[in-house]
Amino acid sequence: MKHAHFHHRSAVALLIPCLCMSVRLWAQPAVARPDATRESLTEYVRPFVGTQGDGNTFPGPSAPFGMMQIGPDTDMELWETASGYEYSDSSIIGFSLTHLNGTGIPDLGDFLFLPTIGTPKLIPGSKTAPDSGYRARYSHADEEASVGYYQVRLKDSKINVELAAAPRSGMMRFTFPASDSACILTDLTHVLRWNVVWSRLRVENDSTITGYHNVNGWAKDRPLYFAARYSRPFDGYRIMSDGKPVVYNGYRFRSAAEAAGKDVQFLAHYRTRADETITLKIGISATNAENALRNLDAEIPDWNFDRVREQTKAAWEKELGKIVIEGSREQKETFYTAMYHAFLAPCLYEDVSGDYFGLDHNVHRAEGFTNYAIFSLWDTYRAEHPLFTLIQSRCDADMINSMLAHYDQSVEHLLPVWSLQGNETWCMIGYHAVPVIVDAFLHGVTGFDPQRAYAAIKNTAMNPHYDNVMTYAKLGWVPYDKENESVSKTLEYAYDDWCAAQMAKRLGKKEDEAYFMKRSQNYRNLFDPAYGLMRGKDSQGKWHSPFDPHLYVEGGDFTEGTSWQYSWYVPQDVPGLIALQGGKERFCRKLDSLFVTHASDSTRGVDDIRGIIGEYWHGNEPSHHIIYLYSLAGQPWKAQARLHEVMKTQYGNAPGSLCGNDDCGQMSAWYIFTALGFYPVCPGSDEYAIGSPCIPKAFMKLSNGKTFTMTAENLSQENVYIQSMTVNGKPWTLARLPFDVVNGGGKIEFRMGPKPNKEWGN
Amino acid sequence: MKHAHFHHRSAVALLIPCLCMSVRLWAQPAVARPDATRESLTEYVRPFVGTQGDGNTFPGPSAPFGMMQIGPDTDMELWETASGYEYSDSSIIGFSLTHLNGTGIPDLGDFLFLPTIGTPKLIPGSKTAPDSGYRARYSHADEEASVGYYQVRLKDSKINVELAAAPRSGMMRFTFPASDSACILTDLTHVLRWNVVWSRLRVENDSTITGYHNVNGWAKDRPLYFAARYSRPFDGYRIMSDGKPVVYNGYRFRSAAEAAGKDVQFLAHYRTRADETITLKIGISATNAENALRNLDAEIPDWNFDRVREQTKAAWEKELGKIVIEGSREQKETFYTAMYHAFLAPCLYEDVSGDYFGLDHNVHRAEGFTNYAIFSLWDTYRAEHPLFTLIQSRCDADMINSMLAHYDQSVEHLLPVWSLQGNETWCMIGYHAVPVIVDAFLHGVTGFDPQRAYAAIKNTAMNPHYDNVMTYAKLGWVPYDKENESVSKTLEYAYDDWCAAQMAKRLGKKEDEAYFMKRSQNYRNLFDPAYGLMRGKDSQGKWHSPFDPHLYVEGGDFTEGTSWQYSWYVPQDVPGLIALQGGKERFCRKLDSLFVTHASDSTRGVDDIRGIIGEYWHGNEPSHHIIYLYSLAGQPWKAQARLHEVMKTQYGNAPGSLCGNDDCGQMSAWYIFTALGFYPVCPGSDEYAIGSPCIPKAFMKLSNGKTFTMTAENLSQENVYIQSMTVNGKPWTLARLPFDVVNGGGKIEFRMGPKPNKEWGN
Repeated sequence: MKHAHFHHRSAVALLIPCLCMSVRLWAQPAVARPDATRESLTEYVRPFVGTQGDGNTFPGPSAPFGMMQIGPDTDMELWETASGYEYSDSSIIGFSLTHLNGTGIPDLGDFLFLPTIGTPKLIPGSKTAPDSGYRARYSHADEEASVGYYQVRLKDSKINVELAAAPRSGMMRFTFPASDSACILTDLTHVLRWNVVWSRLRVENDSTITGYHNVNGWAKDRPLYFAARYSRPFDGYRIMSDGKPVVYNGYRFRSAAEAAGKDVQFLAHYRTRADETITLKIGISATNAENALRNLDAEIPDWNFDRVREQTKAAWEKELGKIVIEGSREQKETFYTAMYHAFLAPCLYEDVSGDYFGLDHNVHRAEGFTNYAIFSLWDTYRAEHPLFTLIQSRCDADMINSMLAHYDQSVEHLLPVWSLQGNETWCMIGYHAVPVIVDAFLHGVTGFDPQRAYAAIKNTAMNPHYDNVMTYAKLGWVPYDKENESVSKTLEYAYDDWCAAQMAKRLGKKEDEAYFMKRSQNYRNLFDPAYGLMRGKDSQGKWHSPFDPHLYVEGGDFTEGTSWQYSWYVPQDVPGLIALQGGKERFCRKLDSLFVTHASDSTRGVDDIRGIIGEYWHGNEPSHHIIYLYSLAGQPWKAQARLHEVMKTQYGNAPGSLCGNDDCGQMSAWYIFTALGFYPVCPGSDEYAIGSPCIPKAFMKLSNGKTFTMTAENLSQENVYIQSMTVNGKPWTLARLPFDVVNGGGKIEFRMGPKPNKEWGN
Repeated sequence: MKHAHFHHRSAVALLIPCLCMSVRLWAQPAVARPDATRESLTEYVRPFVGTQGDGNTFPGPSAPFGMMQIGPDTDMELWETASGYEYSDSSIIGFSLTHLNGTGIPDLGDFLFLPTIGTPKLIPGSKTAPDSGYRARYSHADEEASVGYYQVRLKDSKINVELAAAPRSGMMRFTFPASDSACILTDLTHVLRWNVVWSRLRVENDSTITGYHNVNGWAKDRPLYFAARYSRPFDGYRIMSDGKPVVYNGYRFRSAAEAAGKDVQFLAHYRTRADETITLKIGISATNAENALRNLDAEIPDWNFDRVREQTKAAWEKELGKIVIEGSREQKETFYTAMYHAFLAPCLYEDVSGDYFGLDHNVHRAEGFTNYAIFSLWDTYRAEHPLFTLIQSRCDADMINSMLAHYDQSVEHLLPVWSLQGNETWCMIGYHAVPVIVDAFLHGVTGFDPQRAYAAIKNTAMNPHYDNVMTYAKLGWVPYDKENESVSKTLEYAYDDWCAAQMAKRLGKKEDEAYFMKRSQNYRNLFDPAYGLMRGKDSQGKWHSPFDPHLYVEGGDFTEGTSWQYSWYVPQDVPGLIALQGGKERFCRKLDSLFVTHASDSTRGVDDIRGIIGEYWHGNEPSHHIIYLYSLAGQPWKAQARLHEVMKTQYGNAPGSLCGNDDCGQMSAWYIFTALGFYPVCPGSDEYAIGSPCIPKAFMKLSNGKTFTMTAENLSQENVYIQSMTVNGKPWTLARLPFDVVNGGGKIEFRMGPKPNKEWGN
């Protein structure tokens, strides 16, 4: 059922604040190290977290929001190994230059490099028989991953491999044994899961190569270029095309220094002394090989591997320091790994010149902003971008400008849905660029043009072609006889419309506000009071029958979920939903049952979602806000218990700790907010729901220069219940926290205890 | 033997002076029409000449040296139909945007357009069963081709098609019958002979599309983009991918307005009234779709088909007017068609911005010159470029600058051999960019940097990888045991080296001059006195045995020829060759026998070369200078008779008139010089060989502003022999004509008669 995976995997883009200037100025003198007396936060990051099982995270080095994400690939076939690396595998195919972090669908993995000894092999081979190809055995005992660094010693060849990354470039340091047959393979056909449709390679001089390939992948038509400089001239080299060396046969000249085709590989041959180190510097570009070389030379002018490693570590130190917490080592490791994962995407996607490959497949120059790609918006609008609003507002503005450029270049005049390096994958549903923009706009993120942004929002929400949006606008729901996933689409459109209305309101566009507010109530049209659940309706207004609230089928009325799960999705009007359900008591009783329902046989098909508590699936995004609904429905103690349960069971500091696809950081961003004690149930609104803090103390350095403080007195494994709380020193009894308290640099103090205080927050 | 064709086809680039400024300023107010009282020279051009049989010419409209060469394709498979159009075919596949003129190997034919009626077909179908696909029957009675214009009425659909071309853009005007099912197909997979490896298409708005494909052809890796505007919005459209419409199926959105893949087609659907005209404007670019659109909009801002046609015609009028002749209508048709063919290539290869796709596959901007592509140098160095030296010096300088840019971008640090739109095909032998540059430099062409050019020449002639050049330099010959075509290569290197020496001499580089002069004598090393012929030698100095002077085998010692033909190839030292042969008498006797030798069975393999007189093959370039050797060996009357024989039998004004591949105009340039009575046997030298004029009078407007005049008194079908001659009014008895007489705007007067005057020129 590989094909099916394409549809039902969730895929989330992680969006994090992005040292935009430092990305551009990376090759300038090193970013100042944080105060030497401060503890190093990067030491807490465990890049292997999420690499075992469904987390699909990427363990290699990367600058924050880096374009070059260089790392080991152990798999290139499985949907289940979307980042290329699965901790359970025991052999490595090689080291490629780009990766997705935590998505449900594989792509990238461009350009594989691998040092070898002996007669070079030209196919990767299989996991069960690594020697059938160039695959290299390794053991985790010989492997290390830390911020900005990855190292592994390959078992059979005894070559030590070290990787470091700058924003658009990286280094590979190989330490060889003495050998007459050392080789560094570059495989241009390598890409995760999909197909290279064309490639080319040029040997620019005795120690420099450039290359290109175009990939027909999840991103349908994605070019990438690279340039690699080797620390010493090749002792010999060969380009292999279709498995045969490119040579001049004495007839009419054929250059052995360049080739183009579907199956091109490069072999750099060396005779090495014992422990001889050969280092590669590699740059990438989406526009052309010349820019790849320029990116490389601008960012890594010399051969100092350790400096690149330290510069990137220093850049991360600065980013991680935006939230400083107290807590146990395990808490810090879990927390800062989540911060790290949250800041791996969206990814820089422009040359040092500002050139990038646009959605219209022309080369554009980003003027006045830094261009980013990889927007997993169905996931990241929920908690990632609201986090950026607070602590990465400059990058958030750049990301919004990148989305507006996408809109300008879109043949359908749509904001991105799930965009991936100059391509729209059309993955997932809704128009969730809207909440991202609106949340930023209403919360003081500047650096983009609100009128231009609103025009894009409105045109997107009124698109005549996209997913029956205008049928929805006319009927009040997406009819299931016209469109799959009709209930999920209706519910998510209604939320996005509410966001559009909020922006219209702020901009004084009263008619638009009224229009979108009306649409935002469309969720009501699919609420079937007979079940107290959301249910599909056809274009004649008839309910979809038969109706199984626990049914998930691909292409049914729900997106990666069931009615039982999606019926909680009205973030823009929780009181309205509660009223439909018959009041807070009934609402909460129903919610209780969600966590104890045994998933029925109907719930087949979603085979990679874990984190299951009853029919609550923490491993996928539609559940992410649900626990917090207890807080908004008068029974916050139930949220407090469930949140701690999830934090304990679905997160941690081990490779297998993540219960579901990290989805470009959304799983991690959920953790960050939840650990701090609150969560943006409805991005774009002026308040958070209060949950239950999981760390004793946190300082958040906001983009506006202020510092927000959270303390949780008496917090322990057992003391998970809020006894009382103050905001800015004054008692606070609501289970909702105004956005302005946080962004205004306020202070909240929880007092925790072992029993619920059912008076608080009710 | 299709594969064999790749090797043994000759392919000649036609090089002609190129209104560089007018190319860039084309969309400015129309080029001034020539004096209204002057006869229209464009009326004499017969674009169908050479389209029947081996001429391989292109009959569609093009600006002089145009990038857009838009025309009908009747074949897309055969080597024998390299331009896509064979006059003998009775159905047309469609109309594509680019073509080669007269090459021996097919390529280009990018992006097919075809108007149809009825259910659209998606495959071209076959010549024997046109209805099996979209092929359209036609008759020459319904077809017209003139300068800047092509028209055909398609038999079954009754659609009238008209084509016009601007430098980087063109128009297609379709006149439809009344129909509910009119359609304009665009097939992105169409290319002549080779394969489209990837393509994409975008519907930019209701009447504009853009597209791209990359072709793995003779040019191994060649991208091209187009943009097309339709004169009225589509009534409907479909993109077809792998034969199926690209549609949104109601699941998750898929835009119907864009697609990428290996098999992409576009269908613009219309309901037409009787005689309704729908016009397309189409631009191309090698750099991106945006530039294709810019090129289009800059060159054709409105919808005036007739103005585009007239502007291009006016541009040609100016170019053809550089030589004004008197003569019969047939003579004028033959002559001006030759001029037309000589000015179709090399082709403009840059956007209006100056951007072009370089040999290194980066996008470059041509600064200070106009970039040209398609250099068939093995052919065109002989007569084409020497003609450009005289009457297209500005374009010649641009072409040289284009070749120097190629050199800068060459991974092998080589000047072009046979370059084709950002690719080096490595077709044919030698380094004949050298004579092109040297002939221009020594004869006053300015606008390029001689020192830079000489450095490129020297590095090319000293290349350590290319075709055993340095083995030749060391041994004195190319050894046949190391390198195929060893004799041809030795002889042609020696000539190229002589040219390099001439440039070194003028630049005062005495050592280099001596070095290359020494190399230029290497022809002597392969002269076997036992046969009086050139013969292969191995690296030990042993003659290649057995030796059959009439043998041609692919990959043997000779390039598309035999020893019997190549033994005349010492243009740089004809006296030296005559001496080796034992003096003028013996030399001429041997030459006599060339024309009466019956081609032996040994001469198999060269199946597309016609124009055979004995073992003289006028249809291929190695023979082109041979007849003139009579003039240099004291028996010019034999040249006079043979030249007239060739002019009468191998040229003319009918589709089947050209006896061999026009090779980008070299066959035509031979005609032009020969008609004027002289020929550049040794480009780079300071003299021409005098042949025998074939037209009564000619005025040549030189690039330096002067006018050269030739008259041939008493010329007739019988009066082919020179009786006497004056140069600038003074009697002239040498069969050689100084370059300065021509370029100085001199006047030569022949007096012709029916019998040889064996005293003259002896």
